[in-house]
Amino acid sequence: MSNVTVFGMGSFGTALANVLAENDHNVLMWGKNEQSISDINERHQNSRYLKGAQLNSAIRATADLQEAVEFADIYLIALPTKAIREVVGQIDSLLSDKKTFIHVAKGIENDTFKRVSEMIEDTLSPEHNGGIGVLSGPSHAEEVVIKQPTTVAASSQSSEVSQLIQDLFMNNYLRVYTNDDLVGVELGGALKNVIAIASGVVAGMGYGDNAKAALITRGLAEISRLGEQLGADPMTFLGLGGIGDLIVTCTSTHSRNFTLGYKLGQGLTLDEALNEMNMVVEGIYTTKSVHDLAEEQHVDMPITNALYGVLFDDEPVDQSVAYLMGRDKKAE
Amino acid sequence: MSNVTVFGMGSFGTALANVLAENDHNVLMWGKNEQSISDINERHQNSRYLKGAQLNSAIRATADLQEAVEFADIYLIALPTKAIREVVGQIDSLLSDKKTFIHVAKGIENDTFKRVSEMIEDTLSPEHNGGIGVLSGPSHAEEVVIKQPTTVAASSQSSEVSQLIQDLFMNNYLRVYTNDDLVGVELGGALKNVIAIASGVVAGMGYGDNAKAALITRGLAEISRLGEQLGADPMTFLGLGGIGDLIVTCTSTHSRNFTLGYKLGQGLTLDEALNEMNMVVEGIYTTKSVHDLAEEQHVDMPITNALYGVLFDDEPVDQSVAYLMGRDKKAE
Repeated sequence: MSNVTVFGMGSFGTALANVLAENDHNVLMWGKNEQSISDINERHQNSRYLKGAQLNSAIRATADLQEAVEFADIYLIALPTKAIREVVGQIDSLLSDKKTFIHVAKGIENDTFKRVSEMIEDTLSPEHNGGIGVLSGPSHAEEVVIKQPTTVAASSQSSEVSQLIQDLFMNNYLRVYTNDDLVGVELGGALKNVIAIASGVVAGMGYGDNAKAALITRGLAEISRLGEQLGADPMTFLGLGGIGDLIVTCTSTHSRNFTLGYKLGQGLTLDEALNEMNMVVEGIYTTKSVHDLAEEQHVDMPITNALYGVLFDDEPVDQSVAYLMGRDKKAE
Repeated sequence: MSNVTVFGMGSFGTALANVLAENDHNVLMWGKNEQSISDINERHQNSRYLKGAQLNSAIRATADLQEAVEFADIYLIALPTKAIREVVGQIDSLLSDKKTFIHVAKGIENDTFKRVSEMIEDTLSPEHNGGIGVLSGPSHAEEVVIKQPTTVAASSQSSEVSQLIQDLFMNNYLRVYTNDDLVGVELGGALKNVIAIASGVVAGMGYGDNAKAALITRGLAEISRLGEQLGADPMTFLGLGGIGDLIVTCTSTHSRNFTLGYKLGQGLTLDEALNEMNMVVEGIYTTKSVHDLAEEQHVDMPITNALYGVLFDDEPVDQSVAYLMGRDKKAE
């Protein structure tokens, strides 16, 4: 039995806190939203993010960062990519010994092109770094919290940390597979949001299952090309953090990234689509990072480039599809 | 401009005949169904298989095998796996020179474990074999015939044949990628039907997107293990004939294999499910072939084995899911 602090009170952090509590670990959640905190402490729910789901009554929540830092030796970081440096920096300033960091963020930092584990490593003082790992895969929080069969990958540069993640989370409805390719698992989780937006565009334009499967498959091919160039094992993209997560994001209307793309495919501009949604869509920032990174690395990413044109250069979506379909004859 | 005979009058053969005619090739379709023949010749439709679709008026159809054999130097074989040896044998007996055979069948022969190109090669006299290739990928006929964007892979032991397939079919709504891994492309097309049935089972039991993504991803992992053992390049399973076809079959209710699985997941026996469907479901035979082949090759295929138990040993579906979720901790 371990003590774990979960930083972040979104849907996935909450679902994983519940898994940990169900597995008999002691769990404290940290966040800033007073409504969620009292909801968790008093009603054992987090109705803002997981409406209707009953949480394990042993989970406690707090807004006190000092308490959260002191509670555990293992931290689950369930925050958006943009918040990672700020919160990990605040945690670091309160630490006096080593902690293990497990994150579930899916992004690549703009301009630096750093993966999330690199952002954490950068921000932490070396004497507080007790190992960094990631948990990723096809895992809608709404299904995990009602104990539907789910599989994920756990990865770290340290096999001890990967196994720790597997031991903490695995049970009869959540299967955790270890994978020693940290670069591939993190890139797979981030890059799939780009393809999810593109997949939504195609669906919003009224195209069918063939076009969606084409986009997912050729999207995976360009993810793999970039991943391999950056040191990932291309076989990782065949796994849960790659194609598994890509499928769940591209075929579910629950995905924010897919939904944004769908609105663009129906003819809305980016601003109009975002106004209708009123929430952060991580894949927009990732598309910029990946586009710039692919250019720097000289990797051919036609789907990412077409989507970049739609998002940032006001290119019409039908012209982008015609461009993708009209390219030269190729081998796979 | 080439002459092509299409053997078979099902939905996919018809959709591809239409692509060929749209690409200005001369197309003759051969089959036994008099209703489809007159439908094609007189109304330019094949309403039995592609209701409502208007076909190119240059396509002709015949029941005369001699005429079909003499019409072209390129044959598109669009028949179920079980009919391949009989029809190719009849064609062979009428031939006096070499022909190129392109097939679109997705199966593995029971007992011999042969792929379809091997079945054709076996059945043809060597002096009539002008090359054998396959076209495979995520391509619902219903969408191809209305010119929705679609991508497929073309493969052969001969790069000339792969390129011929690419040249014949490629246009602004059908992108054809060549792939020199014939073993991988054929196995991908056949094995995906096993996973499609299993995916239907899980959906029929009421499980969600996480479970489906898990099944597709881990299904792909076991397909890749078997494929590699049989000489395929595992990267092929990342491509259109692998994951592409798998996605379209596992996420579409149009698929017979998925539908069969769905009924099993709802609690019907195999006989009850087949009675309700009243059509051939290729994946049942493929499950038997793959199960037996995996045993012979000592390859671990837990999803195939669990499905084999459900199909042929009356094992309850919930017990099979519990078995899959309860296995030892693994690496990906």
